[in-house]
Amino acid sequence: MVKTDLQQALQHKIDTKTKPLGALGKLENLAFKIGCIQNTETPKITNPTIVVFAGDHGIAAKGEVNPFPQEVTAQMVYNFVNGGAAINVFSKTNDIDLKVVDAGVNHTFDSETGIIDAKIDFGTKNYQNEPAMTLEQCEEAFKKAETIVENLHKNGCNTIGFGEMGISNTSSAALLMSYFTKTPIKDCVGSGTSLDTQGISKKAKILESVFQKYTPQSPKEALATFGGFEIAMICAAIIKASALNMVVVIDGFIVTSALLVAKAINPEVIDHAVFAHNSNEQGHKTMLAFLKAEPLLDLGLRLGEGTGAALAIPLLRASVDFLNNMASFESAGVSGESEN
Amino acid sequence: MVKTDLQQALQHKIDTKTKPLGALGKLENLAFKIGCIQNTETPKITNPTIVVFAGDHGIAAKGEVNPFPQEVTAQMVYNFVNGGAAINVFSKTNDIDLKVVDAGVNHTFDSETGIIDAKIDFGTKNYQNEPAMTLEQCEEAFKKAETIVENLHKNGCNTIGFGEMGISNTSSAALLMSYFTKTPIKDCVGSGTSLDTQGISKKAKILESVFQKYTPQSPKEALATFGGFEIAMICAAIIKASALNMVVVIDGFIVTSALLVAKAINPEVIDHAVFAHNSNEQGHKTMLAFLKAEPLLDLGLRLGEGTGAALAIPLLRASVDFLNNMASFESAGVSGESEN
Repeated sequence: MVKTDLQQALQHKIDTKTKPLGALGKLENLAFKIGCIQNTETPKITNPTIVVFAGDHGIAAKGEVNPFPQEVTAQMVYNFVNGGAAINVFSKTNDIDLKVVDAGVNHTFDSETGIIDAKIDFGTKNYQNEPAMTLEQCEEAFKKAETIVENLHKNGCNTIGFGEMGISNTSSAALLMSYFTKTPIKDCVGSGTSLDTQGISKKAKILESVFQKYTPQSPKEALATFGGFEIAMICAAIIKASALNMVVVIDGFIVTSALLVAKAINPEVIDHAVFAHNSNEQGHKTMLAFLKAEPLLDLGLRLGEGTGAALAIPLLRASVDFLNNMASFESAGVSGESEN
Repeated sequence: MVKTDLQQALQHKIDTKTKPLGALGKLENLAFKIGCIQNTETPKITNPTIVVFAGDHGIAAKGEVNPFPQEVTAQMVYNFVNGGAAINVFSKTNDIDLKVVDAGVNHTFDSETGIIDAKIDFGTKNYQNEPAMTLEQCEEAFKKAETIVENLHKNGCNTIGFGEMGISNTSSAALLMSYFTKTPIKDCVGSGTSLDTQGISKKAKILESVFQKYTPQSPKEALATFGGFEIAMICAAIIKASALNMVVVIDGFIVTSALLVAKAINPEVIDHAVFAHNSNEQGHKTMLAFLKAEPLLDLGLRLGEGTGAALAIPLLRASVDFLNNMASFESAGVSGESEN
């Protein structure tokens, strides 16, 4: 591939900094990518924001694929509102804005909570019986998510990460993973919040039967069939944020499943995606390999909520800072390598 | 091993946070470790500081093991003073104090530069001919480093990372690694700043011959024989910081070689060491395995200066913040796992 003028300029700028060639490893690739996304040699991370989308899942009511009861989705949304969840803490530690969206929780939240109301319904249908949502609901989720991203962009946010909360949503993610990567269901299913081996095996059996029941004809139909409202919204938000030339920080298993859908709809989203971390949920590594993605962190996280994205933001800042603020060999008067 | 009351209390606190058991992966181990180091259930990271020790090496003058000329050590120290190096940028990005120490650079710095003067000599001797330093010089380096750490501790710093600058110091680190881990020299030698395969092979041959020339009888004698002034000071600083119950953030290949010496002198230092990253310098992975260390980051860095330590500090902050500020299942009113 021929490098554009900007790409050449970025690479030259990186290579002439006061360090051995390539010595900043992944941070060099990251600075290069953010420069390309923002179409500048002096990229910046401004008003970075994590948006957590929450939604309930029809299948969760039966408790067959999830050890935590469905009510935990709403309870955790209250935890977000009260500042007590991991994503609250990490956002504060790293000076990141945090927004919480009701994409479709089985609960009515008071408007005073500060939650963004984008509710499609009180949870999806159980895909054991019928598609999780209608195509109309899926379109509605796309429109609402696009508006949320547009508003953040208008307020100066150029870097966005996504988080999710939804009891049973690893099941949706596994189904979408199987559909888009053609990986057998059994290799897409993991422990989720904390299933044991027996639980994982039961979950795989149930999801295998769900997967065989449908033959979606398009990415969006697959999303509506297997997805959750929060996953549909993340998918739409990824597409919209990419169109606005924002840096899109991809979190773990669920968010990456939304990216798989987004990429099938618009392959260019991958050029805007920065992969925060390698989740400990089985299947995420396979997703990342499918996407040829090199995640920044590998901390053994399996929490979701956007926690991996929040922890990766300081590395994004460090990468643009070195690009903008490190001296070059010439400007610092440092000798280069000798010829011998 | 029986857990102490504090260890039990820390583990209970971590396990009852609003997240699945173990879902914060390495950050949970980190929070536990920092709690143990600070002997409290509410640890804090205060005034984190990176101290960069710079020193020259007798062997560098001949240019056989290093592609960059010896003058680069002093030039890079000026780059630190002027804020243009990677460690300056990352320290600023992550709100970390930065101190630069002249441990033994072959140059006289003006006192107005703000460099801490702890010069032992204008570079070490060439260990191809005689030990790098005398035991008296090594003792002097220890005393000066201890004073630097004590002063930082008095000013409220409880978390310290070390960096280094010294053309050819990967050679010292390789010799120390071979001595303390009993790994053959050829597996301890890497590309340093940027040697090619032929250069690495030549470097290994030279160092093999140096290694065979001496039979040090104690850790400190090995340090004096193969070390650099900056490595001796980092070794002493690790031991002193551990004695003061500070969190010691270990950077890459050179700093880890200093830790190998420190551990041989006082095995307890390992309980205070947090491993920042897996460096791309060949040999570092083997060192980490020898120490049974699990580094936080793996970014393909091979720059030194303490850059890996500076990039890991936000993860230390995140770990103590979740321990102190996340809600528990009980306090947040979130349901736990169901019994079925």
